[in-house]
Amino acid sequence: MQTTIDVRGMTCGHCEQAVKGALTALNGVEGVEVHLTAGKVDVTYDDAKVTIAAMRAAIEEQGYDVVA
Amino acid sequence: MQTTIDVRGMTCGHCEQAVKGALTALNGVEGVEVHLTAGKVDVTYDDAKVTIAAMRAAIEEQGYDVVA
Repeated sequence: MQTTIDVRGMTCGHCEQAVKGALTALNGVEGVEVHLTAGKVDVTYDDAKVTIAAMRAAIEEQGYDVVA
Repeated sequence: MQTTIDVRGMTCGHCEQAVKGALTALNGVEGVEVHLTAGKVDVTYDDAKVTIAAMRAAIEEQGYDVVA
């Protein structure tokens, strides 16, 4: 499965790494690509193991806003 | 001694922590205050132990530009 999450507040490479690290730590997340200037995060995942809600929560825990 | 270093490229709390951490790691640096939006870093230091050049180098190693 693949999804794109819109994230507000990522400003630099540290932010990119924080979001990427939080998502990669989730069991079931297979790949993460952060598009910093676009504020978009592409995630490849196994939907038998992880939910989009869990991904959104992981991003928010790092201090970023997930849009809609 | 006290100095203020102008730094370009700090955008977020992670940047602030990166700069603060790099300076604090220098022997002779006694205090660091980062003003993120102003792009200024106030450093209190013992000039018998550390040079401003060393501080500038530490900041640049973190990927930020020191102005003039």
